[in-house]
Formats: sequence, structure tokens, C-alpha cells
Amino acid sequence: MLGLLAVCGLAACRSNASVPLGSIGSRVFVVERNSETLAVYDLDLRRVVHRVSGLGNLQHATMTFSRDLRYGFVASRSGKLTRIDLATLAHAGEVQTSKNSIDIAISQDGRYVATAEYFPGGVSILDTQTLELVRRIPAAAEGGPDDRNIRVTGIVDAPGNRFVCTLIESGEIWVIDASRPDFPVERRVPVGPGEPYDAMITPDGGTYVVGLRDTDEVVILDLRDPEGSAQRVSLREPGRTYDRTAPIKLPHLAAWAVARNRVFVPLVGEQRLAVLDRDTWRFVRSVPLRGNPVYAVRAPGEREVWVSFSGEEDDAFVQVVDVDSLEVARTLRVGGRIYHMDFTPRGSHALVTANRDDKLVLVNTATDAIEDEEPIRSPSGVFGVWRAFAMGL
Amino acid sequence: MLGLLAVCGLAACRSNASVPLGSIGSRVFVVERNSETLAVYDLDLRRVVHRVSGLGNLQHATMTFSRDLRYGFVASRSGKLTRIDLATLAHAGEVQTSKNSIDIAISQDGRYVATAEYFPGGVSILDTQTLELVRRIPAAAEGGPDDRNIRVTGIVDAPGNRFVCTLIESGEIWVIDASRPDFPVERRVPVGPGEPYDAMITPDGGTYVVGLRDTDEVVILDLRDPEGSAQRVSLREPGRTYDRTAPIKLPHLAAWAVARNRVFVPLVGEQRLAVLDRDTWRFVRSVPLRGNPVYAVRAPGEREVWVSFSGEEDDAFVQVVDVDSLEVARTLRVGGRIYHMDFTPRGSHALVTANRDDKLVLVNTATDAIEDEEPIRSPSGVFGVWRAFAMGL
Repeated sequence: MLGLLAVCGLAACRSNASVPLGSIGSRVFVVERNSETLAVYDLDLRRVVHRVSGLGNLQHATMTFSRDLRYGFVASRSGKLTRIDLATLAHAGEVQTSKNSIDIAISQDGRYVATAEYFPGGVSILDTQTLELVRRIPAAAEGGPDDRNIRVTGIVDAPGNRFVCTLIESGEIWVIDASRPDFPVERRVPVGPGEPYDAMITPDGGTYVVGLRDTDEVVILDLRDPEGSAQRVSLREPGRTYDRTAPIKLPHLAAWAVARNRVFVPLVGEQRLAVLDRDTWRFVRSVPLRGNPVYAVRAPGEREVWVSFSGEEDDAFVQVVDVDSLEVARTLRVGGRIYHMDFTPRGSHALVTANRDDKLVLVNTATDAIEDEEPIRSPSGVFGVWRAFAMGL
Repeated sequence: MLGLLAVCGLAACRSNASVPLGSIGSRVFVVERNSETLAVYDLDLRRVVHRVSGLGNLQHATMTFSRDLRYGFVASRSGKLTRIDLATLAHAGEVQTSKNSIDIAISQDGRYVATAEYFPGGVSILDTQTLELVRRIPAAAEGGPDDRNIRVTGIVDAPGNRFVCTLIESGEIWVIDASRPDFPVERRVPVGPGEPYDAMITPDGGTYVVGLRDTDEVVILDLRDPEGSAQRVSLREPGRTYDRTAPIKLPHLAAWAVARNRVFVPLVGEQRLAVLDRDTWRFVRSVPLRGNPVYAVRAPGEREVWVSFSGEEDDAFVQVVDVDSLEVARTLRVGGRIYHMDFTPRGSHALVTANRDDKLVLVNTATDAIEDEEPIRSPSGVFGVWRAFAMGL
């Protein structure tokens, strides 16, 4: 509530009296991980205006929003998809699509929402307006046995009204055409040796990136090339000696940042970001950091990447990496155990969840001043409604 | 109305019955230039759901939207700023800020809207929630006479909660700090010889670009360098002979596209785009075109730039330039006298106004199919509400 008086002058407060929940465009949903709840924070009122409860297990839950800004969607680890009315913040329907969902995406034409499911493994596609299940695609390798469970993860929207996802146990990338009524799986691309565990798409919608367990490589697929196969990219620093027997820790793929012509990869278990070239995917250099990075998030304007850390000594800090110099420009102390970061769409503020301190922190990106700290119980993911208008989110 | 049945199934129509105007996120405002009116097109309903009238002279009018998506703002050539409620589409206040406004911008924190004014020359800054005029800055060169009129144009939002604008007769760029209560003009940067006529900001908010009348150069200002001066950039193709006595025709600066590491400049009066390097602003190459270009607009994903033309033989066509190969990939016939183009935010469709044919055309960008043609009287600018979330728009 810091700074509330400064934001809400008398006249503004009067006009907001008729809109007690705030307005659609300034809404930020924050996962309260331990209570199956989303807290709704209003950027202009600078307070939590509502809580949406009964959403199921929200471990690793992500949200997506319909293009018309009528609805938000959240898929839970208990397999329930819930639709939330963005005007009233009320439940607007729920569907049990599986017993365990891990990821969610919305088609670029706004008509379909798709969930990636661990068990039973598959993809469910629902009409965003009616919530009708229009297609369920069980995860089964082509010609392979379909009596074993194959988990699906990393589902994203892609140009041409496609969904792209990753099958873990069968090691495949699927491209699903959501512009045809039968939603065909039009491509099944093997990722080669190694088990995938997560995936992401670059913000331009051009490249799908898959992480592989127990390797130092990722797989990239150029989505613009309809005949292309998956390519391998190394994350190791050339010329450096590695202990080949040490376990390789796994970065969240969604934690990568793409800014201008660079890809920033937080290497879990190493005190550095790896920087790759966006066009060639070759290693450019490492950026030394104060601790082990978890998330790298680009700021609007693509001049800065904000990095969070694991470990009690480091996890209250954000290091801001300059995209031009590829060096740490400054270090901010924000709050204990930072879990997630997002930026307001024109970049004026960062929204940071500090899980151990049970708060959401609003940081002015021009001054680094903390302008608001809002109590939120065990916060993790932060999702502004502006994600409705960004590819891959 | 083409394709309406396909979009609006029975269940969707029922749920839309309570929202007859469509939903905020799918709203596109189209200037009806000859009738002082904005037509409101709904992307999902695929029809004009409302008209907002009495807005004043809308020649060259642009719109901006508040971050909370409560309001749209339009400034008219007759000097009137009108606020439109995005939920009800009703007038929500108007202010006569001058006798002739040319441009409008909204601060990155969403609190202020600013108009650039031709007469009396200056900048008016209003509170977005109360519509109160909080500051008017008359256009006067520092230490110069203030008894002559100086027109202001090209106002944009910039990082650090700044407004940047251009003073035509005094040849200056102004940077205004909208994070301080007195809105100081913190920088006045001379552009050097030549009279500016228009300006733009790159989508990353890093560079302000000013066009100069009767020269083959533009001026760029690096906004990240608080001490930097304006630099000159040539648009001429090196090694080519030009008739130095021929009049130089003036491209709209807002017509330039920035995609990946390239800047695409439609050279009015020449059958080519000039391609510049985004970092060095050096000439890269020309892209030959079928006619004289007017607008170049990048598609989301930054893989394509769509180009419109002047002249009856060419103005019904769009040429699509591939950003990688820097060649024309395809040519589409869309409708007579194309004035403006915009894309849905994830890039599934283009919205094109065909002024001579009195229609708005919805093009599927994956198939190039025309999916809807909507009658609009003398349409020009097209403004989707998603501009609320993009820097510089």
C-alpha cells in the first residue's frame, strides 16, 4: 500500500468508486501457491482487490488470457482448468481435463485454449467461449505402444495458428494445426537422444527450444522450416573443463530471456548466464553473477535482463544485466526468495514475488525505488493481463 | 460480415448476447475521416458494433489507450481531445486543448496523456483519470522570441516516464519528464540545419527519429545517452546519382518499420524501401518495389514487413517483404487506396483500410485469405486497443 496516496488523488478515488475491482488492463494475477488461490493486484489502486479461490494445486501453474480480454485461464496440477471472468473476477466455468495438467496455451486467433497433461498424458483443446472440449489428443508415439503413459509439457502458441508441445517419454515435438476442425498433429519431430523435460518458444514465434535431462545440450526447432529437423545446441563454455560425472541441474526453459540478438540462459548450479547468438545459437560469452541464477527476464525495450537467484545468501537479490555490454549493471535487494518477475508492458515497473517474505514488490525501473510492497501468501507466478497480446505467453 | 457464421457458433452467440458491443480486447477503432467519427470493429463478432461521432476534424488523427484499458483518447485537428469509455463506447469527457492538435501520447505509468499542438504551438498534459489539464507548455525556443507560433509534432512516450516531441519552426527535440509534478522540459536538443516535419520512436524506446524537410537526411537522438546530441543519417543509396534539383518528397516518419536488426524506410517518390542497420543506422540495401511506397508495417514476429503504395495503379496492393532475405515474398490485392495497416497482436490477421473502396479488410496472415470486408466510410487510421501495451504507440 506504499505510495497509495500519491497515486490515488481525490478525483481519481471518486471515479474509481464505481469500479471497486479496478480495471481490466491494470490487473495482475499472482499465484498463492499454498492455498490454491490467485490474488488479483491492481496496478493503479496498488492493492489486492480480490482473491480467486478453489483453483486446485497451483504448483508451477501458469495463466493465459483470451484475446478479447473476457477471460483468464489457469490449469492446475490436479487437472482442473478454471476460467475466470476478467470483468467480475468470478469463476466462469471449470473443466476437469485430466488428473494432472502442467501447462496451458491459447491459439493466436483466440478461439482455443490447450492444456498439456502429465496424466493421462495428452493435450486437451477447449473452445474459449463455450469451454466445450473440442478435441483430446492422447500422447502416443506414432506406431508405438499406447499402453504406457507419455507426459506432455511445454505447450505454446505459434504462428499459423499452431500449438507446439513436447512429449517427454517418447522424445517428440508435436505441431498441432488449430486452424483445422480436426486439430491434426501435422508434425512429429524426434528430439534424438535424451529425455526432454521442458520447452519454450522465442518471443518472435520462430524457434521452439527443448531442454534435455542429463545433458549439456538443448534442442532447437526452426518452426518456419516445415521440413526442418531438430538441431542440438551446447550450453557449455568452450575451452572450459567440466566434471563429466557431476549431475547436471536443469534450468526452467521458461526462465530464458531473448533480448535483441541474444539469448540469455540461467545455468542452474553455475554462477553465470550463458549468452547465445539468437540467429546462430552459438555461444557468445558468459556473464558472471553473484550466485546461481534461476530466472532471466527481459525488460520491455530489451536493454536489460533481470536475473533472480537460488540459495538463501543470494535469493533476495536481482542482478540487472545490460544487453549491450553483457555485464551486470546493478544489483537490487528486493525481498527473500524471489520466485518470479514480470514487467508492466511499457516497462515503467517490475513486479517481483518474494516467497519467503510473503509479498509482491513493485519496483520503479527508472529509479530502482520500491514503490509498493503488498502482502501475498506464499506467492509464486505473476501474470499481467497484457500477456493476452504477446506471442508464446 | 464474411465468415461470421464460422466464428459465432450457437453457444458463443448466446454468451455474447449479454455483451452486445463485443469485448474490450477485440476492439479496433477505425477513423472515418470525412465524418468526424470512429467506427468500432469487433474482431470476434466481425462487424462494426458502434460508431463514436462528434470528434472534430480527424485528418491524420491517431489514438492512444490508457494502460488500465478504461479509456481511449483521440486528439483532433480542431484542437479537441475526446476520451472514450472502452467498456460502454460512450464519450467520457472532452477538453479543448488548442485550436489544432496533431499528435497524442500516453505516459508509460499511464497517468498522463499529452497532445502536440500546431496552434497555439505547445504541449498540453492532462490527467488520464480526471481529464484535468495539469500543465501546458507553450512552444518557445530557450531565450528566443515567444511572439511567433512554433508548431509541435511527433510526441511519443519514452522510457523513464518521459515524453519526447519535436518543435518545427525552432528545430528542437524536447524531452519532458512526466515523473515530476512540474513536468520540466529537461532537454532541448537542436536538430541542426533543416526544418523538422515529423518524428517517431523505435519500438524499443531507444532512438527518436526526426524527418527534415527538403533534405535526404533524418536526425536520430539516442535517448539512452543523456548527454548525446542529434546525429545525421542519410537515406540516399550510396553510389547512385540523384537529381539534386528535384523536390524531395516527405515520408511519414510513423510509416517506418523496425524489425529485428533492420529499419525499413518507405522512400516517397522512389520505387524502393531503404533498409538501414538498426544499431549503426548505416544504409544496408534497397528493396525494389512495384510502386511508390507509403507505409511499411512490421508483422508481429518481425519476419515480414507489409508495404502499401500511392498511385491508382499500385494503391490496391500490399507487398510483403521478408525480413531475412530483404526481398518481396508476395504481393496481395486487398482494396483500392490502402491507407493504413495494423496486425492483431499475436499476428494471426492484418487489418487494412481501403479508402477508395470504403472498407476495412481482415486478412489471414497464414493463408493471405480475405476473411472479412466491412463497409466503413472513407476509412483511414486503424487502432487496436492492444496499443495500450506497446511503447511509442
